[in-house]
Amino acid sequence: MHWEGEKRRRLRRLEEAIERGEVDGPAIPVLEAINALPDYCTTSSCSGRVIVLHEPEVGDKRRAEFLAKWHEPPVDVDRVREAVRRAPDEGITWLKAQPPLFHVLCRDLEAARRLRAVASEAGFKASSIRSIKDTKVVVEILGSERLETPVKVHGRETVREEAWPHLIDLCNRLLTRGHDRLKRLVRAVKGLKEDGE
Amino acid sequence: MHWEGEKRRRLRRLEEAIERGEVDGPAIPVLEAINALPDYCTTSSCSGRVIVLHEPEVGDKRRAEFLAKWHEPPVDVDRVREAVRRAPDEGITWLKAQPPLFHVLCRDLEAARRLRAVASEAGFKASSIRSIKDTKVVVEILGSERLETPVKVHGRETVREEAWPHLIDLCNRLLTRGHDRLKRLVRAVKGLKEDGE
Repeated sequence: MHWEGEKRRRLRRLEEAIERGEVDGPAIPVLEAINALPDYCTTSSCSGRVIVLHEPEVGDKRRAEFLAKWHEPPVDVDRVREAVRRAPDEGITWLKAQPPLFHVLCRDLEAARRLRAVASEAGFKASSIRSIKDTKVVVEILGSERLETPVKVHGRETVREEAWPHLIDLCNRLLTRGHDRLKRLVRAVKGLKEDGE
Repeated sequence: MHWEGEKRRRLRRLEEAIERGEVDGPAIPVLEAINALPDYCTTSSCSGRVIVLHEPEVGDKRRAEFLAKWHEPPVDVDRVREAVRRAPDEGITWLKAQPPLFHVLCRDLEAARRLRAVASEAGFKASSIRSIKDTKVVVEILGSERLETPVKVHGRETVREEAWPHLIDLCNRLLTRGHDRLKRLVRAVKGLKEDGE
């Protein structure tokens, strides 16, 4: 069947990506739990991250450049500050903590509804159905806790010297909380199997 | 019919809310354009806002308290700073710029797909289907540009004195950009009528 063939191809690509070390560790148990269910197939993932990002203009995501990135704590305050210092003066440099994000292809709408509901209950309140093509449906599993702070605007740093450790501590807590939620998500997804399938 | 009755009730409540001044001005043309179409009925809206928000603990949204709020520029730097100064020392105080947000009840899934696609093309890239109950579907129209900056953490202000005007300027630009996008959204929604209905 079409679905089975597509899922097999995608899982093969995922395995290769994991072997190449391209998939962040905390995401892997979630991917495994979802892909173990017959109606679901993951298409992309991020276990949550802290980034330093430069945009030549606000909102110009295409020309944005990553200056530093962490998928696991501890985020290093010195490396963050170094990245901010060497960021270009024009434009805007952000420190962002982004929640975990998974895109999951679902065999049909009913499967998508179940997954979205389970993810939302597990704390991923911003989860939604992102697209519907033919019968297939893409669910986005997404957390809602984020931090998006401009740290350099037109060449001027915005954060007080003494506030940096607090800001980075907050980033670390958000990363850790995201990872804790991933464990809840794995349990919830495994529960899906017993309920519905 | 059920749908028509529910829509009529909701529109009556919306009109009363508008009369009481409870609906922010820039949202109204969007609400009117969507509600003019037979398959859609708005249930909540925000045209985008800048807020100063205190959370006794990070992520504790239930106990969070608004210290200041703007739906239209200009955000006043002195009032923001005053709100930050009088924020409690424990917990965390945020300055946030949030994008426009609309929840729309759609008569069926096909109508929901059309609206989501049109909103995404009009620049509301984070738009999605949020829930499906019986045959009715809720679409969330949502922008993706936000700022979420901790401005006071455990009693310490984090923003440099000289950076405040830049930060507030950025908030104003985000608000204005959101409003410009609303105009695009109104045009796009009006186009829906000609295409599909």
